Amino acid sequence: MNTTPSATLALACDLIARESITPADAGCQQLMAERLAACGFRVEPMRFGEVDNLWARRGSEGPVLCFAGHTDVVPTGAEAQWSSPPFHPTVRDGMLYGRGAADMKGSLAAMVVAVERFVSEHPDHRGSIAFLITSDEEGPATDGTVKVVQTLIERNEKVDWCLVGEPSSTDLVGDTVKNGRRGSLNARLLIRGLQGHVAYPHLARNPIHLAAPALAELAAEVWDQGNAFFPPTSFQISNIHSGTGATNVVPGELEALINFRFSTESTVEGLQERVRSLLDRHGLDYELEWNLSGLPFLTEPGDLLDGVRAAIREVTGRETRPSTSGGTSDGRFIATMGTQVVELGPVNATIHQVDEHVSVADLETLTDIYHATLRWLLT
Amino acid sequence: MNTTPSATLALACDLIARESITPADAGCQQLMAERLAACGFRVEPMRFGEVDNLWARRGSEGPVLCFAGHTDVVPTGAEAQWSSPPFHPTVRDGMLYGRGAADMKGSLAAMVVAVERFVSEHPDHRGSIAFLITSDEEGPATDGTVKVVQTLIERNEKVDWCLVGEPSSTDLVGDTVKNGRRGSLNARLLIRGLQGHVAYPHLARNPIHLAAPALAELAAEVWDQGNAFFPPTSFQISNIHSGTGATNVVPGELEALINFRFSTESTVEGLQERVRSLLDRHGLDYELEWNLSGLPFLTEPGDLLDGVRAAIREVTGRETRPSTSGGTSDGRFIATMGTQVVELGPVNATIHQVDEHVSVADLETLTDIYHATLRWLLT
Repeated sequence: MNTTPSATLALACDLIARESITPADAGCQQLMAERLAACGFRVEPMRFGEVDNLWARRGSEGPVLCFAGHTDVVPTGAEAQWSSPPFHPTVRDGMLYGRGAADMKGSLAAMVVAVERFVSEHPDHRGSIAFLITSDEEGPATDGTVKVVQTLIERNEKVDWCLVGEPSSTDLVGDTVKNGRRGSLNARLLIRGLQGHVAYPHLARNPIHLAAPALAELAAEVWDQGNAFFPPTSFQISNIHSGTGATNVVPGELEALINFRFSTESTVEGLQERVRSLLDRHGLDYELEWNLSGLPFLTEPGDLLDGVRAAIREVTGRETRPSTSGGTSDGRFIATMGTQVVELGPVNATIHQVDEHVSVADLETLTDIYHATLRWLLT
Repeated sequence: MNTTPSATLALACDLIARESITPADAGCQQLMAERLAACGFRVEPMRFGEVDNLWARRGSEGPVLCFAGHTDVVPTGAEAQWSSPPFHPTVRDGMLYGRGAADMKGSLAAMVVAVERFVSEHPDHRGSIAFLITSDEEGPATDGTVKVVQTLIERNEKVDWCLVGEPSSTDLVGDTVKNGRRGSLNARLLIRGLQGHVAYPHLARNPIHLAAPALAELAAEVWDQGNAFFPPTSFQISNIHSGTGATNVVPGELEALINFRFSTESTVEGLQERVRSLLDRHGLDYELEWNLSGLPFLTEPGDLLDGVRAAIREVTGRETRPSTSGGTSDGRFIATMGTQVVELGPVNATIHQVDEHVSVADLETLTDIYHATLRWLLT
């Protein structure tokens, strides 16, 4: 039995140990940049605002196959609930535990190791290999990939294919890839009441009482049925806050944050109109501040999807399932360059949760799949 | 025109000038104790924890008529919004402005002056006069009146009638007295879901979505119809919080603070059971932490209410209206001794607000009413 950790596991652990809670990078990109520079990449840090980004490229010709991803992770939640500390990568029963293990430091490690292996075997590969790495994917995503993409567009640097390391798999690594994503539409909803004393409710209007039936109806609403490429539009209330802290005061207002993940069957304007009309029907005094975080995008079958399918079949014997479900990713920004974008990464069952983990064996399989994709597309 | 301030106004100003924000007394009780000692009271400071209380009694026989109240005041709020500084008592257009003017330093001054006048006229009145004063009414109310009452019960000291100086009046002084109060029952309600990513709602259980229909139903519930003495039981959700702050995370739990103001038509156990059964019917995973803040109490027509009615009629010509509406007061603790309790004080329109004030003329009327009550009951 081999007790030396594999190159991918070792690098994944090095990355997880860095507490890169969004938008912090905590040195992850420097570590990746050193490894890439050592195998012939020109590395180019691109800092925008408080966000570290990395653009790296090996080769000057097309076609360009770009690996994309993020070094930032979501907050840990209650650390006491973790079985092992979230930033102390720990292997138990064949699983690597730590914040970012699945989303997506495991993928970043697999990409770097796959590229190192491919370059040593094919130093004169055709085209170029690139990396587009940000530390602002889990946060506002305003100074991250979108700004790097702007820079690339301005200098006319073309990316043909992009493999994003987001955890796309459902049960087994490679069983699902994402060839598109739903749109994401956020809003801050403020519902106004009238503050008062709980003992004199007739002199107050409780915004929690006023809001509850409308929120119940929003949560139960069917927005559309999806289509051949997209699952149905989903709605979630992610935050709700009201109250002064005192137990004897009826609060004056309630704030909620809402989010739509929407298919191409719904439009931004249509969803906004339906929310307004439901709130109006409940006679609420409200404000809505909308924030469109991304329109839906789709990569139809072509070179990249074919290459990824072939690589997965070769390494795992599996027929992968292209899907557009799940969260947004920075793929939506990259797709605006006309780039074919496919997301391929580990099983996503525990992402953003306490005790996030990834199978150690899957990290090796993922490394092999990335490596095979490089061979399919660049040799 | 008489430009010398009346005894009641002068004492009210002396009390307001002391910054006795709860639980501070700031020397108010010392001032009252000196005045009461000068007219024959045995004064007994009772300090519990950080709270000053005063028990004072004149006479050793029954029946005992006790004046009760508090020297502490609620915080001022934004001082800049006050027309005159909150602890600089100021008379403008016949109104005395200052924090505590109406709740309840004006009443304390009227009580002391009424008693001084009554004692000088009737040095050998029947029964006893007492004062039960705390500085912990606006705060947690754990080291105040409740502890003094315990002490009195332990030493078998009986109080027959208690006049609490809470601002009971609605439009004109004496138009309303409180002859009871609803009970107050608080709970912290925790509803559990399962944290996850907003884009994968099938892997999470959103506690906001789960709670909304149940909260809507709780808010719409009719708990009882009240009775001849009490308005219907009311229910308010005073605080609700859920969410990590992130817009892409489905939260793991939701917390709400709820409060019942309940009539004698409902019991604590009955209300608790109905809340549990409603939450169970919605299939919720929840915890409830109950905190009973006070049982309802009622003083039915009898000597005290008759005396107060007669005194108000004699001084103002008004028929007073007994009521049990509004917030809790320390009357709930005193009533546990089997004491008849009536709350009688000035107009409550500005209590707890910026620019709290009381009519100077009303302070004189209130002094006369307390004085007449003493005559009705102790001569």
